[in-house]
Amino acid sequence: MSRHIQLTEQGRLKHFLSIEGLSRELLTEILDTAESFSGMAGHQIKKVPLLRGKTIINLFFENSTRTRTTFELAATRLSADVLNMNIATSATSKGESLLDTIRNLEAMHVDMFVVRHALSGAAHFIAQHTAPHISVINAGDGQHAHPTQAMLDMFTIRQHKKQFAGLKVAIVGDILHSRVARSQILALNSLGVDQVRVIAPKTLLPAHVKDMGVIDLHDMAEGLADVDVIIMLRLQKERMNSAFLPSESEYFRCFGLNEAKLKYAKSDVIVMHPGPINRGVEIASSVADGPHSVILQQVSNGIAVRMAIMSMTMQSHGVSA
Amino acid sequence: MSRHIQLTEQGRLKHFLSIEGLSRELLTEILDTAESFSGMAGHQIKKVPLLRGKTIINLFFENSTRTRTTFELAATRLSADVLNMNIATSATSKGESLLDTIRNLEAMHVDMFVVRHALSGAAHFIAQHTAPHISVINAGDGQHAHPTQAMLDMFTIRQHKKQFAGLKVAIVGDILHSRVARSQILALNSLGVDQVRVIAPKTLLPAHVKDMGVIDLHDMAEGLADVDVIIMLRLQKERMNSAFLPSESEYFRCFGLNEAKLKYAKSDVIVMHPGPINRGVEIASSVADGPHSVILQQVSNGIAVRMAIMSMTMQSHGVSA
Amino acid sequence: MSRHIQLTEQGRLKHFLSIEGLSRELLTEILDTAESFSGMAGHQIKKVPLLRGKTIINLFFENSTRTRTTFELAATRLSADVLNMNIATSATSKGESLLDTIRNLEAMHVDMFVVRHALSGAAHFIAQHTAPHISVINAGDGQHAHPTQAMLDMFTIRQHKKQFAGLKVAIVGDILHSRVARSQILALNSLGVDQVRVIAPKTLLPAHVKDMGVIDLHDMAEGLADVDVIIMLRLQKERMNSAFLPSESEYFRCFGLNEAKLKYAKSDVIVMHPGPINRGVEIASSVADGPHSVILQQVSNGIAVRMAIMSMTMQSHGVSA
Repeated sequence: MSRHIQLTEQGRLKHFLSIEGLSRELLTEILDTAESFSGMAGHQIKKVPLLRGKTIINLFFENSTRTRTTFELAATRLSADVLNMNIATSATSKGESLLDTIRNLEAMHVDMFVVRHALSGAAHFIAQHTAPHISVINAGDGQHAHPTQAMLDMFTIRQHKKQFAGLKVAIVGDILHSRVARSQILALNSLGVDQVRVIAPKTLLPAHVKDMGVIDLHDMAEGLADVDVIIMLRLQKERMNSAFLPSESEYFRCFGLNEAKLKYAKSDVIVMHPGPINRGVEIASSVADGPHSVILQQVSNGIAVRMAIMSMTMQSHGVSA
Repeated sequence: MSRHIQLTEQGRLKHFLSIEGLSRELLTEILDTAESFSGMAGHQIKKVPLLRGKTIINLFFENSTRTRTTFELAATRLSADVLNMNIATSATSKGESLLDTIRNLEAMHVDMFVVRHALSGAAHFIAQHTAPHISVINAGDGQHAHPTQAMLDMFTIRQHKKQFAGLKVAIVGDILHSRVARSQILALNSLGVDQVRVIAPKTLLPAHVKDMGVIDLHDMAEGLADVDVIIMLRLQKERMNSAFLPSESEYFRCFGLNEAKLKYAKSDVIVMHPGPINRGVEIASSVADGPHSVILQQVSNGIAVRMAIMSMTMQSHGVSA
Repeated sequence: MSRHIQLTEQGRLKHFLSIEGLSRELLTEILDTAESFSGMAGHQIKKVPLLRGKTIINLFFENSTRTRTTFELAATRLSADVLNMNIATSATSKGESLLDTIRNLEAMHVDMFVVRHALSGAAHFIAQHTAPHISVINAGDGQHAHPTQAMLDMFTIRQHKKQFAGLKVAIVGDILHSRVARSQILALNSLGVDQVRVIAPKTLLPAHVKDMGVIDLHDMAEGLADVDVIIMLRLQKERMNSAFLPSESEYFRCFGLNEAKLKYAKSDVIVMHPGPINRGVEIASSVADGPHSVILQQVSNGIAVRMAIMSMTMQSHGVSA
């Protein structure tokens, strides 16, 4: 279903809602397009006029300054006009339905919604009901997906490892509640890595996690053995000291990444994290700031990847490049 | 008095504060100018450089994301720079007077204030005291006026009915507290419709409503008989279940617009609403989303009408078009 | 130390953190550059493309709509892209450290941070730790410095008095808690005025104030005698009726500036205030709005001075002008 919604009849990207249903060719096209924008950061003037005159609405039903900023920067560098709408404190509080909010913004001839919502499926719902000329980009929906984050991770992996074939990737942490992990697993498998491992205490793994095409492990020594890439997940504060976990220090002892555990992995392993990091909770500062860390490169790549996705979806509507 | 404040010595529009005192010719000029912008929505690049280099301040003393967004979009499409100032939570909380806030912004060489305020007369007050090079646009002041909303309504009526002469228009709902209704009545009469009817329970009609040149009615069958245009007003939550009204369901039974009551009107009647709508309170979903509804066209037209008003007021100061 | 941080090896301005360590030549260059922007306000189109394609982050850890607006306007008129981040309610609430926030924004290839923070030294700290291609401008840090305010004050003084040599300047009010006063004293002395006097009750003067090169006085008659410039400071609400002060009316009686006390000064004295003013607390309305007041000119000059500082710091990184 995602497939039909996200693509035009010619198979071009119209919305970007989840990795599900996107072919390896399309994901690779995103990475290649991002690479062309990636060089721009060094330019004196970092803007291209690709989306000049287009109006992009950052439709954030859930506050996230960090994610909002990356999309705003990406849109600005494509020369689009960006409006930020924090809907949590706005129209819906007047009792207007989500659909009426969308219909109204559509009527103002906007061109793209970047949607962040606490409910899984919100971006899909909007894409299903919005006018045909509008593209919808999922900037995180509940525990479902965070596909632009997954794509910037793929970009970073390819940057360092050149190809996906043969790679062993470990994702460590709260898999159960993570929209990031879900999107990463789909992308890694679609791009053809050798092995995706998830490492977590049993309380933080979904029931049928194996069905996602991963190997589940509960021990860092075993899980990190010989991997090329380690992706650490952020431990949400609300999970700490809850029924899910004994204590913060106990979690760090077992599943936190420090220099000792890093030695289990290949010598050229890269360490990733979607940020913001909890130093000393899921990752030691010496690792986060150490030579294997590519965490800040992920942030840089996030701008180029979002520029790629935004311009590709707009071009599928017939914007001349 | 409004007349003098709003117009230059040559009779051109300098501020846009209320419909009062504006001639039929000037209102028609606004509608004609808006029509020229209205075609733009279909263009690939929706911007014109009319207000390039101009600084517009959205000075909102009362929060309204929806209205703020329409003005921000209109300004952006005229290539102006827009700054949003939510004053409720800002300078005045440091004890600065409204006048000092205005004086300071003036000193920063801004060109236009779009003012939203909970007090009737606030936009007039600012226009009276601001520097001569600055235009003030009223985006809603207390229960006094919401003239840009009225003008987009007039635009929508003309779009469908071609001319105002001969039209019968019914405005339904809380006339007493509605700045929108007040502006609509003035505009409809100035543009020369045949009849303006207001339909409401007696508790929601001003004491001397007949002096505004309307026919007041308390029954939908009688009120909607043979009308060309129905304008439904939003029922504010704070009026429901108060001394003004028995109950929400009782209100809907008597004054809510459903398909049965719609039959009283002409067969080509159009149904309007300033939004956001309360489905099932003042209007049934089947009518709001039905073939007679032009509610979303009103929203689209709102951008073009605001572009017209913004560019006309700026041009009266000698900006070359 | 400030000196090294703020300047490139060629002695050009890289960051603007405090007046300390900046030569009279450099301060004069800022004033001269601001003068070239100052003429622009009368132009039809008030923008220059000096910082086109540059990304400026307003990084406000402390809310200040007024200061934020002046920087946003200055940046917009230099054609830069501006992002406002109100960090008080954002990332750091997710437990991210200041340094991690900075590292992340750096990674997004931004070009300048305009920093407002409740802690003294915050802007210095960020400048010390940020990437070499980024400029940091201090928009007020705790009780330490507010150097752009001081420079717009110097600009206003030069505008009226032509030169600094020979001038007697009185600063009146809460010197103890004022970052503005601290920066003004440094700038006035660096630019070579004849005399800087501070006038305040003893409870509102720092212990070793004389070490700053000022004359301290506790009486307005004596303090204002024969001065060319009076700078009134804002009395923070939290100081009133506290241990520092007897009462608001008592303060006004002793240290408030009214027309009677103004007569102690030279006949062509100018009266300044950083705003927002407390009418009837530190200054009488008749003086604030009177012929000696240049308070609103300070606000206007603030845009030109901030444009000067922003463009100079960016040009030190090799932006062609």
